[in-house]
Amino acid sequence: MSILAVGSMAFDSIETPFGKADEVLGGSATYFSTAASFFTAVNLVAVVGEDFPQEHIDFLQQRGVNMDGLTRSRGKTFRWKGSYSYDLNEATTLDTQLNVFADFDPQLPENYRNAKYVFLGNIDPALQLKVLQQVIRPKVVACDTMNFWIEGKREALLETLKYVDILLINEAEVRQLANEPNMVRAARKVQEMGPTTLVVKQGEYGAVMFTPNAVFAAPAYPLEAVFDPTGAGDSFAGGFMGYLSSVDNPSDEAMRQAIIFGSVMASFNVEEFSLGRMRKLDISQVRDRYRKFQLLTEFKGVD
Amino acid sequence: MSILAVGSMAFDSIETPFGKADEVLGGSATYFSTAASFFTAVNLVAVVGEDFPQEHIDFLQQRGVNMDGLTRSRGKTFRWKGSYSYDLNEATTLDTQLNVFADFDPQLPENYRNAKYVFLGNIDPALQLKVLQQVIRPKVVACDTMNFWIEGKREALLETLKYVDILLINEAEVRQLANEPNMVRAARKVQEMGPTTLVVKQGEYGAVMFTPNAVFAAPAYPLEAVFDPTGAGDSFAGGFMGYLSSVDNPSDEAMRQAIIFGSVMASFNVEEFSLGRMRKLDISQVRDRYRKFQLLTEFKGVD
Repeated sequence: MSILAVGSMAFDSIETPFGKADEVLGGSATYFSTAASFFTAVNLVAVVGEDFPQEHIDFLQQRGVNMDGLTRSRGKTFRWKGSYSYDLNEATTLDTQLNVFADFDPQLPENYRNAKYVFLGNIDPALQLKVLQQVIRPKVVACDTMNFWIEGKREALLETLKYVDILLINEAEVRQLANEPNMVRAARKVQEMGPTTLVVKQGEYGAVMFTPNAVFAAPAYPLEAVFDPTGAGDSFAGGFMGYLSSVDNPSDEAMRQAIIFGSVMASFNVEEFSLGRMRKLDISQVRDRYRKFQLLTEFKGVD
Repeated sequence: MSILAVGSMAFDSIETPFGKADEVLGGSATYFSTAASFFTAVNLVAVVGEDFPQEHIDFLQQRGVNMDGLTRSRGKTFRWKGSYSYDLNEATTLDTQLNVFADFDPQLPENYRNAKYVFLGNIDPALQLKVLQQVIRPKVVACDTMNFWIEGKREALLETLKYVDILLINEAEVRQLANEPNMVRAARKVQEMGPTTLVVKQGEYGAVMFTPNAVFAAPAYPLEAVFDPTGAGDSFAGGFMGYLSSVDNPSDEAMRQAIIFGSVMASFNVEEFSLGRMRKLDISQVRDRYRKFQLLTEFKGVD
């Protein structure tokens, strides 16, 4: 089952303690689609400017990403500049240039409207809702958001969340959204806002999933070198939704496996700048790391 | 197999966002012994002052803790005063009164010297070594330490570590000890200092164990209310070493189970001030929460 995904495409300039990259391919939709493409086809909705090179579009298309929903607008592509200190969990934004993204008005091509799996990437919640309204009858709707929208567009976000099944959110943000310092209680409060499932991303500590009947905790993969955390959350979402839609059965069992595939994709993504690692990756390496997650977490019961 | 444990016994005064407690029973040896007593007998080495009430000694003895190694010195018992903000991962020390602990000179009773399992609680590394030298031929030696000793007694700590099998240490402290920001590489460096196994405690994020051939990651138990984190690390160590010595087989499988039992004991301990929760706990509740850890972490493989 293919996925409809909306989000940003961008040029990122990034500085980490281990190096820097200038105007490299980035954006939530880019990371998401690339990660998801290891599992399923993706129908992308995004906007780029006149300066966006064809090679990036070719790359995504070669990965099975349908670009019918890509708008090329007059002006420049969205740009983000950020840095990370040794605490790689949090980026410091140095500069944001919305450019063509400022007037993004997502329109779905006809052939996107029967989507069953929808991922609303981290954009203005009003736009997320606008995308969702153009889908005839989605089966699973997942959504990402961030502190910027929780603070600045809370009402629109709460409206969008009413129609969302799975919210992927950072730990600090779930606390902020629920106005509750304890993560478990915060998750329970957000579950009453619409999404029955919450995936709380904890950066280098992994992720915790709250479903109506269970909690599932997955560690992050212990890496000797985290090179660039940019796109980790979106790669996670891509692996998660990609796997889930590929099996087309949102059971508790499949959701747990999807969390691990999300963690796998995020762990690869942070090993290089931009999409460098995912460009070289093949599905056998993905499955191999999945098995390493099993070895990392398994323990026997006691009588 | 019983455990020999050395550490502090103290009166703690604690303030958290959820309440306060004055001069309650605390100390690393107290938490450790109580947690370990759910699995095995403990031979305790510690010092208290003239003000230490008999009821606390009775409590530990009733839990199967041998107090032959307890010294009652002239003067007052060790006191610690600390507070926690909503970020419950780190305590702010407000006051430390070493009192009788300042001149602690641990002497092992004869009947302690054949110990096979030894836990060197978080005290001066020179004293840890002094305890270890009095044991004839230990089989498994575990050790806890903290930033205070890493900074102030580095040489003595490095000397002690040469004789240690398992080091239990906080995440920030393993980075500090190895002078290496990446946890995985830091753990590998510390493994070359002596301990072949490292248990890196990550507070509300759980623990990661590095053995010579594997890495094991365990989440913390998601709690709706963390009341007081004091003693979580020592309760963890008690559950870990208690279980390990009870099976008397430090295999990778048993070490993983021990990590879960450590996590179980820590998760109970933080639910109330002081040893309040452990006083009411029984082994069936411990085993029940172990099973909940299985439900929390299990996921199926993929073909």
